[in-house]
Amino acid sequence: MNIKFAMTEMGRAARDAERMVAGASVEQRNQALIEIQRALASDRDRLLAANAQDLEIGRQSDLDAALLDRLAVTPARLDVLEEGLSQVAALPDPIGQISDERVMPSGISVGTMRVPLGVIGLIYESRPNVTIEAASLCLKAGNAVILRGGSEAIHSNTALGESLTSGLAAAGLPAGAAQVVPFVDRAAVSALVTMPEFIDLVVPRGGKGLIERVMAESQVAVLKHLDGICHVYIDSEADTEKAHRIAVNAKTQRYGTCNTMETLLIAKAQTGMLPALVTALQEEGVEVRGCDGARDAAPAIVVDATEADWATEYLAPVLSIRVVDGVDEAMAHIAQYSSNHTESIVTENKATAARFLREVDSGSVMHNASTRFADGFEYGLGAEIGISTGKLHARGPVGLEGLTSRKYIVRGDGHIRQ
Amino acid sequence: MNIKFAMTEMGRAARDAERMVAGASVEQRNQALIEIQRALASDRDRLLAANAQDLEIGRQSDLDAALLDRLAVTPARLDVLEEGLSQVAALPDPIGQISDERVMPSGISVGTMRVPLGVIGLIYESRPNVTIEAASLCLKAGNAVILRGGSEAIHSNTALGESLTSGLAAAGLPAGAAQVVPFVDRAAVSALVTMPEFIDLVVPRGGKGLIERVMAESQVAVLKHLDGICHVYIDSEADTEKAHRIAVNAKTQRYGTCNTMETLLIAKAQTGMLPALVTALQEEGVEVRGCDGARDAAPAIVVDATEADWATEYLAPVLSIRVVDGVDEAMAHIAQYSSNHTESIVTENKATAARFLREVDSGSVMHNASTRFADGFEYGLGAEIGISTGKLHARGPVGLEGLTSRKYIVRGDGHIRQ
Repeated sequence: MNIKFAMTEMGRAARDAERMVAGASVEQRNQALIEIQRALASDRDRLLAANAQDLEIGRQSDLDAALLDRLAVTPARLDVLEEGLSQVAALPDPIGQISDERVMPSGISVGTMRVPLGVIGLIYESRPNVTIEAASLCLKAGNAVILRGGSEAIHSNTALGESLTSGLAAAGLPAGAAQVVPFVDRAAVSALVTMPEFIDLVVPRGGKGLIERVMAESQVAVLKHLDGICHVYIDSEADTEKAHRIAVNAKTQRYGTCNTMETLLIAKAQTGMLPALVTALQEEGVEVRGCDGARDAAPAIVVDATEADWATEYLAPVLSIRVVDGVDEAMAHIAQYSSNHTESIVTENKATAARFLREVDSGSVMHNASTRFADGFEYGLGAEIGISTGKLHARGPVGLEGLTSRKYIVRGDGHIRQ
Repeated sequence: MNIKFAMTEMGRAARDAERMVAGASVEQRNQALIEIQRALASDRDRLLAANAQDLEIGRQSDLDAALLDRLAVTPARLDVLEEGLSQVAALPDPIGQISDERVMPSGISVGTMRVPLGVIGLIYESRPNVTIEAASLCLKAGNAVILRGGSEAIHSNTALGESLTSGLAAAGLPAGAAQVVPFVDRAAVSALVTMPEFIDLVVPRGGKGLIERVMAESQVAVLKHLDGICHVYIDSEADTEKAHRIAVNAKTQRYGTCNTMETLLIAKAQTGMLPALVTALQEEGVEVRGCDGARDAAPAIVVDATEADWATEYLAPVLSIRVVDGVDEAMAHIAQYSSNHTESIVTENKATAARFLREVDSGSVMHNASTRFADGFEYGLGAEIGISTGKLHARGPVGLEGLTSRKYIVRGDGHIRQ
């Protein structure tokens, strides 16, 4: 099959390029980012023309306005992309450092060195910006990358791929280091996720449908987040002013993001603060649903929260509220319904906070802070390839370090094992 | 299907137990190890009787002597097991520590906490000791574990499972925290590796056939090593005395282990040392195979090394030798044939060593040391669940830390995102 064969060739080229990128000095990798930046600048007309094609086809196929907006490449967005390349180039080199080195009783010294992962397969939708953002992170971390964007952005991504190729060439790196898949056929995704010999990690970014398809098919490790069903729990010993502020922020600061609160858990002792909180949320346009206890405490809640609400990521101005006895019932609810993305407790009791921080099994667990902080930039990672809700390898916001691995380094002076 | 249903119930029990083990203090987890030790001591007669059944069945089915030896549980081996439980109890608690905590510009403090992985599925062969050794590591790291040993050890493992249950009960932990699969049917393995809702990580330990079957079937992340095709490269600037000593040790100290050298690469400039080295190896009973260059340099080599040799893990007193131009050709050979387990360079040139350490993509990379050092105990991990040749999550020898993950911990004082 033609696409399968072509994808295999891309995989082989990436695997071949991998050693060159991994072996490149940080100066050369940074140079590649700067050359890509230059290529983007000199290719502007070509990039905007290619994007215009995608936009025209998108309008003809009645893509909705939000999708068309995500698809658009504008001079202002290219400015941001170019600035982003400088920022990634300025980040510290994530590879090569040796840590935890110590001399063992046998006399050998043992440490670990941070090393590139190898070849990353990125599968994403709509935003052509991702092509450059993801490529820059993968290259900075010494990896090769194969980029497979959405079919609606194929002309834009192919054009951006040419800028990647010419930037890499100017820095003396092979084109295989960052390749854009030129096929819109879904068979290209199937091929990409079933070549463990050439791909070390697949990162799907997009809707739940895309991620579930990739997980079902993949023979390669997948770094993904599925849902963000995030909780804030207002403890019986919470400061009500902080609790009010955090709950409103966690729900209303943005609605479509994965770290937005979807369910508020509140201790019975705190239901006195519910009427004012519900009013504040409703004034922001949030539809509030509640369990019986919540509705009793705040009659302004007119919609029942059902079992289905606890398991739903609304990604919309909707919030479900449940009254619980205390932190144990809150943690039991979270264990049952959370997507293990981000949960926060509001309390002034340090022992209760410590239990929550320790026992809640999510990528980010917070005390007296809004779930909206769960983000690679807010955590100081410098950049973010995504947020992982898996437990293995990388968890929570994933920056450059999540695109690396560690190997053991052993040094001796002729040491042999007795 | 009955086994599938029963395995699901075990998975559910493990998932339920997981929160209790993860939430247990280190004192309670250590207490469980000591109670298991006590149970083993008081159950000795029952354990030896159960093992006698397995040994009798094994003899009737003509198991070979080496396998019967691995299967045997003796008072001396129980002593070692009991001592091992004390040692694991004495190791530092791998979970709960918070690292890298720092205050971000927004005012929140961000760090990471080491946490248990969840539920581990262990699949192994022959040695019933593994039942206790693996359970103790999983419990120490705050995990629940489901143990599936070989069918030839079913009576021994079931009996050991009863000791686990009574030890856990005495420490106030649920039986679901460490369960032995009571079914010999292979369907139990299939069920175990296809319940991602209950199992977080599968660790297969055993022959290549077992591991390949698990990898093909598993819907759960697999921590495994497949082959140990380990290389020693003697550089043109090697100290020949160290090179001789390391090569002999890496090959002959033990033959059946995964970190034993299988191929020796030697720079053309060093072939003068080959005759003495080949003689030393042959005196130890090693069959030496060589490329043309090696055979020219050491006529005592009478067997040609073929393409198949470079890709073979002998696990036996056989060694293939290849002459290369220098470090580049050596690294290219390793990139092509290595199983990414352990490789060592012998050289006095620090720049060459640094390149090798950095560019060779294996779990352990060594300089002037025998590959036989690649081992959790030699690396000071205190214990070892296995050696991973994968790149993700855990790589090289895997101790308690590989049975844990990290989550982000965020602390604020009412902080909201702007």
